[in-house]
Amino acid sequence: MVEIRRYLHQHPELSFQEVNTAKYIADFYKNLGIEVRENVGGNGVVARIKGTKPGSTVALRADFDALPIQEENDVPYKSLVPGVMHACGHDGHTATLLVLAKVLNEIKDELSGEFVMIHQHAEEYAPGGAIAMIKDGCLEGVDVIFGTHLWSPVPYGVITYRKGPIMAAADRFEVTIQGFGGHGAQPHKTKDAIVVASQLVLNLQQIVSRRVNPIDSAVISVGSFVSNNAFNVIADSAKIIGTVRTFNEEVRDFIEEEIEKVVKGTCYSSDCTYEYLYDRGYPAVVNHDDETDFLVSSAKLVKDIESIQEAEPEMGGEDFAYYLQHVKGSFFFTGAKPDGVDTPYPHHHPKFDINEKALLVAAKTLGSAAINYQKAAVNQEYSKSATK
Amino acid sequence: MVEIRRYLHQHPELSFQEVNTAKYIADFYKNLGIEVRENVGGNGVVARIKGTKPGSTVALRADFDALPIQEENDVPYKSLVPGVMHACGHDGHTATLLVLAKVLNEIKDELSGEFVMIHQHAEEYAPGGAIAMIKDGCLEGVDVIFGTHLWSPVPYGVITYRKGPIMAAADRFEVTIQGFGGHGAQPHKTKDAIVVASQLVLNLQQIVSRRVNPIDSAVISVGSFVSNNAFNVIADSAKIIGTVRTFNEEVRDFIEEEIEKVVKGTCYSSDCTYEYLYDRGYPAVVNHDDETDFLVSSAKLVKDIESIQEAEPEMGGEDFAYYLQHVKGSFFFTGAKPDGVDTPYPHHHPKFDINEKALLVAAKTLGSAAINYQKAAVNQEYSKSATK
Amino acid sequence: MVEIRRYLHQHPELSFQEVNTAKYIADFYKNLGIEVRENVGGNGVVARIKGTKPGSTVALRADFDALPIQEENDVPYKSLVPGVMHACGHDGHTATLLVLAKVLNEIKDELSGEFVMIHQHAEEYAPGGAIAMIKDGCLEGVDVIFGTHLWSPVPYGVITYRKGPIMAAADRFEVTIQGFGGHGAQPHKTKDAIVVASQLVLNLQQIVSRRVNPIDSAVISVGSFVSNNAFNVIADSAKIIGTVRTFNEEVRDFIEEEIEKVVKGTCYSSDCTYEYLYDRGYPAVVNHDDETDFLVSSAKLVKDIESIQEAEPEMGGEDFAYYLQHVKGSFFFTGAKPDGVDTPYPHHHPKFDINEKALLVAAKTLGSAAINYQKAAVNQEYSKSATK
Amino acid sequence: MVEIRRYLHQHPELSFQEVNTAKYIADFYKNLGIEVRENVGGNGVVARIKGTKPGSTVALRADFDALPIQEENDVPYKSLVPGVMHACGHDGHTATLLVLAKVLNEIKDELSGEFVMIHQHAEEYAPGGAIAMIKDGCLEGVDVIFGTHLWSPVPYGVITYRKGPIMAAADRFEVTIQGFGGHGAQPHKTKDAIVVASQLVLNLQQIVSRRVNPIDSAVISVGSFVSNNAFNVIADSAKIIGTVRTFNEEVRDFIEEEIEKVVKGTCYSSDCTYEYLYDRGYPAVVNHDDETDFLVSSAKLVKDIESIQEAEPEMGGEDFAYYLQHVKGSFFFTGAKPDGVDTPYPHHHPKFDINEKALLVAAKTLGSAAINYQKAAVNQEYSKSATK
Repeated sequence: MVEIRRYLHQHPELSFQEVNTAKYIADFYKNLGIEVRENVGGNGVVARIKGTKPGSTVALRADFDALPIQEENDVPYKSLVPGVMHACGHDGHTATLLVLAKVLNEIKDELSGEFVMIHQHAEEYAPGGAIAMIKDGCLEGVDVIFGTHLWSPVPYGVITYRKGPIMAAADRFEVTIQGFGGHGAQPHKTKDAIVVASQLVLNLQQIVSRRVNPIDSAVISVGSFVSNNAFNVIADSAKIIGTVRTFNEEVRDFIEEEIEKVVKGTCYSSDCTYEYLYDRGYPAVVNHDDETDFLVSSAKLVKDIESIQEAEPEMGGEDFAYYLQHVKGSFFFTGAKPDGVDTPYPHHHPKFDINEKALLVAAKTLGSAAINYQKAAVNQEYSKSATK
Repeated sequence: MVEIRRYLHQHPELSFQEVNTAKYIADFYKNLGIEVRENVGGNGVVARIKGTKPGSTVALRADFDALPIQEENDVPYKSLVPGVMHACGHDGHTATLLVLAKVLNEIKDELSGEFVMIHQHAEEYAPGGAIAMIKDGCLEGVDVIFGTHLWSPVPYGVITYRKGPIMAAADRFEVTIQGFGGHGAQPHKTKDAIVVASQLVLNLQQIVSRRVNPIDSAVISVGSFVSNNAFNVIADSAKIIGTVRTFNEEVRDFIEEEIEKVVKGTCYSSDCTYEYLYDRGYPAVVNHDDETDFLVSSAKLVKDIESIQEAEPEMGGEDFAYYLQHVKGSFFFTGAKPDGVDTPYPHHHPKFDINEKALLVAAKTLGSAAINYQKAAVNQEYSKSATK
Repeated sequence: MVEIRRYLHQHPELSFQEVNTAKYIADFYKNLGIEVRENVGGNGVVARIKGTKPGSTVALRADFDALPIQEENDVPYKSLVPGVMHACGHDGHTATLLVLAKVLNEIKDELSGEFVMIHQHAEEYAPGGAIAMIKDGCLEGVDVIFGTHLWSPVPYGVITYRKGPIMAAADRFEVTIQGFGGHGAQPHKTKDAIVVASQLVLNLQQIVSRRVNPIDSAVISVGSFVSNNAFNVIADSAKIIGTVRTFNEEVRDFIEEEIEKVVKGTCYSSDCTYEYLYDRGYPAVVNHDDETDFLVSSAKLVKDIESIQEAEPEMGGEDFAYYLQHVKGSFFFTGAKPDGVDTPYPHHHPKFDINEKALLVAAKTLGSAAINYQKAAVNQEYSKSATK
Repeated sequence: MVEIRRYLHQHPELSFQEVNTAKYIADFYKNLGIEVRENVGGNGVVARIKGTKPGSTVALRADFDALPIQEENDVPYKSLVPGVMHACGHDGHTATLLVLAKVLNEIKDELSGEFVMIHQHAEEYAPGGAIAMIKDGCLEGVDVIFGTHLWSPVPYGVITYRKGPIMAAADRFEVTIQGFGGHGAQPHKTKDAIVVASQLVLNLQQIVSRRVNPIDSAVISVGSFVSNNAFNVIADSAKIIGTVRTFNEEVRDFIEEEIEKVVKGTCYSSDCTYEYLYDRGYPAVVNHDDETDFLVSSAKLVKDIESIQEAEPEMGGEDFAYYLQHVKGSFFFTGAKPDGVDTPYPHHHPKFDINEKALLVAAKTLGSAAINYQKAAVNQEYSKSATK
């Protein structure tokens, strides 16, 4: 598993350009004689392993694209591609799923149902690979899906889960205020775009503080404010750009509308016009309750896991969200903090690395969930039949 | 003059109720055999004194209503009417004009043209007496008008004048924000009227700071903000009340409109509704340039005057403004600071008093302006004829 | 149970004045021969029922004060005391606990451990009765505590629970801005308290929108803003009063400090002074995880319960919070929506009423939790001994 | 006069680099045998013409530097220096003063007193040439100074004057807010510099709207607001740059202090730090009353002038201000709108041009003021002697 991971680490490919990685994955399956479909929704690869007994269909997903970052780690398996790096652990995800598939394939005679290994391209770059793969049928017949992220802030040996939203929807907005510029000494002949945009920044605060249910977490941050002029003029226009993070679609829709309401009213007050763009990133990853319970009980059976903890929702985005909009399932974090490190480099950092031992934990947890889900499904089916 | 003033001081009457004062004034003229018209536009009294030679018509105005204030001065001529007081000097204005009229009448054989003594009721209480008196013909045939206010902040012996605006238009506005109240713990179910009204107070600042020409003086003050509720609710509504002071009608109209624009936009941003009232008080007193020059040159001939100074515009209102919308003229301040006092009680204070010596200065200045205007008019007429 | 509830409903007593209600409760126990202690921390009453076998000590709590509200229900058991009403269901809580105690007492031969019935006065009025009762020993020897609130928004047959915070800390703050008043036309001679307080209202929004972790729910609401003056003055002072709701003490402390920071900076900007008061109400009711799990599993055994649901945290306060700071336990809601009603009158409303059938559900759930806790404790004790 | 102006127009030199222009001016005087001092406070040139009778000393000033602008006029006298242009009329000022000097020199036998021709370098670029020339003695013995600006917005034949402030002080300020940056999804770990700077922009509005006397004109404009970051971060810092315009030093000092007060308080509220710079440009040009009256009465004697009007104060700066801080005097505008043009190109525009006929008006007005001042001084001196 480590070997595969290191190979992939040395040969990273950017989102939507992962041709060789996809081929590597497909070849892995072909060599094992496992049915594999290539070019699923782009560079996606889907393998299917059937147990000998009838049962339900469980999907497991791993993403395999890398980031436009120049690696700064001094390790033997350092990226060989300048400016491209597996700085988010997708190399580990892929290695985990490949080896798990190999094992499942070896014991398929004992298994019931079907296992769908979804190797997804382009998780790092919106609109992501998930949508296209789903459209291209990767979830066909699937009853449940599980996925994990190797997570360096969480210690090795720990699994964190959460019912409901575990990762936020991450959107982008942009507002350009069009006032009417002029001489700094003659405000009455102008419409001061900087004053209006400043007002807007403050008025936006009220959406979170007054209009969103305090129980629902939401963030609106203006990250950029630019109106770059000489000191003695009054600004003709000003542009602010920001992000919105939410955990449910209702709040997300609401905030998108409220921002415009605030922009419109603020501009009206000062006779300015505006342009408003709202670009949706990935939706929130919302885990299903029963499947999360199931995941937790399965994880309890994995000896390598020392602790199973409830996660705080993460504000970052993941396109695993789309799978959960189509089928039941749960996404969880596998602790992957490097040994002997207190504060590990964060994901997307040029010195990011994972604890390679965590791959085994991830594989066992996913495997435990998949196999036990089949067993439980069979029992239930049986009990259902019995009660008829 | 002092005697008359003291009599009037002891017998003050509120605006629009000055029946006895009006009778006192009319009787004064009747006793002198001067033509007088009563009940002009209400309690107004107008007397006309004609010189023996033809000439122009000069009006002089004095107001005679008192205020609903309980006098706290301990003087022999203290108000005999509980809760009513001449706390603005109108008693002095009236005495000044009466005695001046007596003198003009005595020398009318030497005078040319006509002198109109306008004794106006109800200056203190909008809509004031001026409008009705003008409608009722008090300015008929009048070529020019002069008026003065005894002014306690200015030292005795000083006259202050100003071309253009000398006193501001003083308006009142009221905005009620209608939000949607609720429990203090559930902002998302409400529309917080206090937050919206607070925003409004701040947004209004921009009208003066950004939208009015910095050369034009203007003031918008919110004097009252009331939304009185329990600590643990969110306010259903909030009311702010304030004043606007301006020196020209264009700015006045502009501000009335801009306030509504700001209110509307601010409410739109927060989905609230509003009620907006704008009540106009007296317009600005805007002196005419030539007539003010004339006034100043006439004042220079008055020996009692030690200094003639340009006045800063006063932000308070005066319905003398209306006369100047119909005929040319000038309004000025006659210094009336009590002797031996550094900081006199302000106008409208229960301990307000004037320097009675100032009445003579006022009378002489008005008289000088009136008589010299006639002379100048005759000369000009003569020179006009001559050049034909 | 209904009979007792109705009797209490007809004889409500205000917080800290519940002398007759306390006597009624004590007499009930005395009549049954149950050990009872009166005047615990005020009007509190504590009864103790001992099983015949050794075991742990389980406390159950019911509050019994009423509210200063004039009942508007037209029911046979309507309040007989003008202006006082059991408008929050404490009558039902008391009836529930009394009858449950009677039953426990009847079967005490089969029970192990000890049952402490805490009848608490003054829940509705800070500082509440809980602190004093705890000081006076009501929790002595207690291992665990359970309590419930009859909850009219939740349908009959439903129990709602929550690990961690279930009810918010509810605090009150008050800020008086001292500016320097003056004439509405002369802002430069004043420090405008209304502008400063308005700014403050807006600046406070940023505490929730920017400074509190978005995962932590918090509310800051200004409920009252008063600066009541004439329209043509500038305000000398302005007072705002509001509430803060939080679910953990760290956030609570943080907000108390941040408000002052914002007030201080805002006043500094405008050269004003301030007075800031922050009064802490009840802290958040924070349920313990294991005890809540235990409660839920016990509730599952109660046949009358149709559904056990996770509750959203409520923003209102409860002094049950203090018990949970001393011993482990859990507080839950017993659905008590009147039959045939879609939108029941809210708690504290003059027409508030409960579904009386819910008393039985509450009693059974509390009883199940108490008895099973004893059983579990014995087993655990046993298993502990066994493993030695 | 036009010839000289066109020569200078073709050979413009930037501020502080006007070596050839200075030489041209000095040579002009030398050729006429007039006493001239070069390198006064830099490239300044001062010529002195003495009348034959004793009298007072009158200074006249003209500036002669050009601007870094590429001329876009298609005229025979177009600038021969790429990127440098007399786009403000200083070429005309210089021609005016040179020819006037020639005339005065020719009639010096009839003149009393002394005439000081101040040819000032570097008016366009702070700190300007005036300070250095004054330090170097150009005002030695001077009793009064006059100066004019050819002014293209005012029609030919019109002179505009103003007692008191005629041109504003123009300052620059810069505030950098230092917050603490972070991820857009984690506001609680940051100090949002954009929110703080936005607040600052709004709070600054209150200085003009609430703290400056409404009678005093003042402008504070933020012309630039830059915090340029990715959309999904929270800004670490933000910089705003702006201008302040005032007409008296007290207000100027006050605003400089108030801005810092507002910055400090706003930062305190949000726990940020700041850097504040305030750079003073030229002070306001404040004309002296009597000298302005004198100027106006002298202008009335100039036949070419059709109208003499009071000017609105201009918000732009002029270092003529410094002369008026040392001696009495008056600065006025000479209408120089090109013939047949409704809206002339503004000063500092690549297509700016003046009406060359206006040079004569400027020369005559300055000459009339200078000569009449001498006469008046002699008379006054005479009358003073006589009354002894």
